[in-house]
Amino acid sequence: LAARLAHIPPTVFSEMSALALRTGAINLGQGFPDVDGPRSVVEAAERALEGGANQYAPGIGVASLRAAIARHQQRHYGLEVDPDQEVVVTTGCTEAVAAALLGLVDPGDEVVVLEPYYDSYVAMLDMCGAVRRSVTLRAPSFRPDPDELRAAVTDRTKVILLNTPHNPTGTVLTREELQVVADLAIAHDVLVITDEVYEHLVFDGLSHVPIATLPGMWERTLTLSSAGKSWSFTGWKVGWATGPAALVGAVLAAKQWLTFTSGSPLQPAVAHALDHEPDWPVELARDLQSRRDLLCEGLTAAGLSPRVPEGTYFTTTDISHLGWADGREFCLALPERAGVVAIPTQGFHDDADAGRQLVRWAFCKQPDVIAEGLRRLAAAD
Amino acid sequence: LAARLAHIPPTVFSEMSALALRTGAINLGQGFPDVDGPRSVVEAAERALEGGANQYAPGIGVASLRAAIARHQQRHYGLEVDPDQEVVVTTGCTEAVAAALLGLVDPGDEVVVLEPYYDSYVAMLDMCGAVRRSVTLRAPSFRPDPDELRAAVTDRTKVILLNTPHNPTGTVLTREELQVVADLAIAHDVLVITDEVYEHLVFDGLSHVPIATLPGMWERTLTLSSAGKSWSFTGWKVGWATGPAALVGAVLAAKQWLTFTSGSPLQPAVAHALDHEPDWPVELARDLQSRRDLLCEGLTAAGLSPRVPEGTYFTTTDISHLGWADGREFCLALPERAGVVAIPTQGFHDDADAGRQLVRWAFCKQPDVIAEGLRRLAAAD
Ligand SMILES: CSCCC(=O)C(=O)O
Ligand SMILES: CSCCC(=O)C(=O)O
Repeated sequence: LAARLAHIPPTVFSEMSALALRTGAINLGQGFPDVDGPRSVVEAAERALEGGANQYAPGIGVASLRAAIARHQQRHYGLEVDPDQEVVVTTGCTEAVAAALLGLVDPGDEVVVLEPYYDSYVAMLDMCGAVRRSVTLRAPSFRPDPDELRAAVTDRTKVILLNTPHNPTGTVLTREELQVVADLAIAHDVLVITDEVYEHLVFDGLSHVPIATLPGMWERTLTLSSAGKSWSFTGWKVGWATGPAALVGAVLAAKQWLTFTSGSPLQPAVAHALDHEPDWPVELARDLQSRRDLLCEGLTAAGLSPRVPEGTYFTTTDISHLGWADGREFCLALPERAGVVAIPTQGFHDDADAGRQLVRWAFCKQPDVIAEGLRRLAAAD
Repeated sequence: LAARLAHIPPTVFSEMSALALRTGAINLGQGFPDVDGPRSVVEAAERALEGGANQYAPGIGVASLRAAIARHQQRHYGLEVDPDQEVVVTTGCTEAVAAALLGLVDPGDEVVVLEPYYDSYVAMLDMCGAVRRSVTLRAPSFRPDPDELRAAVTDRTKVILLNTPHNPTGTVLTREELQVVADLAIAHDVLVITDEVYEHLVFDGLSHVPIATLPGMWERTLTLSSAGKSWSFTGWKVGWATGPAALVGAVLAAKQWLTFTSGSPLQPAVAHALDHEPDWPVELARDLQSRRDLLCEGLTAAGLSPRVPEGTYFTTTDISHLGWADGREFCLALPERAGVVAIPTQGFHDDADAGRQLVRWAFCKQPDVIAEGLRRLAAAD
């Protein structure tokens, strides 16, 4: 194994989903829904397959999808995006993250990242030779501390890597919190890469604010998203980056060598989703909110104190309330104890102690699946 | 742009396909067919879309596809491959190359590569900080010189990166040539990464020999391929790597951070292709052979001396026979002069002089398209 990977453990999502498959446990770990997205989008994919969209798409993405992404940014956020210069289609947001970091971060560059972080961020930052500066979202509020942000962002910072709505905590950054980040980015001439895959999955009437919409931020921000979470096709892996041409060009410069292109019959179908199923994510968010409540109530009844998330698929609990000291041990034992899989988030912290007792639970599942998971938890010794 | 990409020009395939789109020229550049693959495979993709294969596939690939890949290796080459340990599915062969190099090559490692090389090899080798040692396939025979191979492979070599059938030259390495490589790999304890995406597209009764089948080679070889070329679905980008568990694990270790997974409804369809459409590539190769002949005869009539390739989609010509000195200038002028796009291969050489006059033409197109391209060439001034 090359040195750039030698110290990076395998992704916990694969490990835990494999454990769920092996044990037949209910998978409240990896974030994917158990009901597929809109019928009309499946039909659009079938038309693309039939209509000959089966050869290489352009590396930058098929034109209809780039146009639909630009319209989406306009409609939801008032952002004017040039579909030919300011959009690039990627193999899900994972590739957008990988290509953005490979395209923009040199060895030794400092990158500020919210902790707990999604595991691919840290793996790619390591592969890029970046120096990581973490700002911790601490229980129970899981909000960024403005002073910690100010201490982390300096003239040595190259990139601030944001994620809102935030996985795993479910925090949705407020306009005020984003303004702190924006002020720092402008003052220190820093780029922002922001993963907004849960952009449409926010609850309780809250709004997602893309940091690219704040004054002075468009020109220094790469906004990453994908169709997988918003339209419940996580396996299609059609994502995108939008931003000024130079930053989008850096993503393309790396991405052309990683996959070149992907999913050519799925790209027109995602264009259909963006253009013709705008209300679908709204209803999904409504459903998810009630599933969130179902899960959080059940976890509370089981003796845990779940954080009621503002967005995403996930809630986080402190398993020390059940007398466990280590979330990873808890999660490895859980399939046998209770027939349920959850995700330990300690690996998403620089300081494993900070996250040792934290476990993430997904509620992007049908209510009866969540209810059965809760019954099993309640029955576990 | 990060330093790791600053000296790498954009892929010539995107550049030339964009030029073809812009000018309406006949695209004999980028290698993709203008007729899609088998109907039954499209239907299998539709069943997968309908049957709920729309959420994340396992990072290693869906089980039915890994099993089909193992059966394919057994049936064609007598290789016994464990589908759970010795196969990983990738986003086309491009991602397999990227992940194999990121997973195995450290900065300063020497990698021997056949020249002219596919452009992503060199970009990824640069990104890995590898020291490249090229062995040139020289016109007119485009065969590797055993003495050059022996001089290139030393105890400093980490990897030999092969490609057979070879793009762009169309050379299919013989068992004897592969034995020279194998002897060197074993003598110097070197890994082999071999891109065999054109494995089924060989002509004139020749056979493709995977170097992994040579004695002592399985344990040091990663064999990369994909469905795109063999079953005419280049846009699906479903590829794979097979080899010993440790080498496949290195691919997975990198790939999990590049895309995590992709194309979940397309993976079962590719399993269907491998299992149920074994003869389709045989007929494709037969068709391609006659298209090769059509193109080569026409290029000869136009005053060129095409190399009659043993495999792949491509033939190479020396455009100095038409009085041009520079293939890139020739190809940039060609849409205007003749309404045709071709690929200059000088960028695929370390020494641009070696390839300055070489231009690659694709014959993976319908005969009337090739004939029209040839008419246009004949009519050009
Ligand atoms: C790419 S695997 C993980 C899916 C996901 O976003 C999560 O579970 O956090
Ligand atoms: C990935 S773009 C190039 C397709 C191809 O294999 C070629 O034209 O050489």
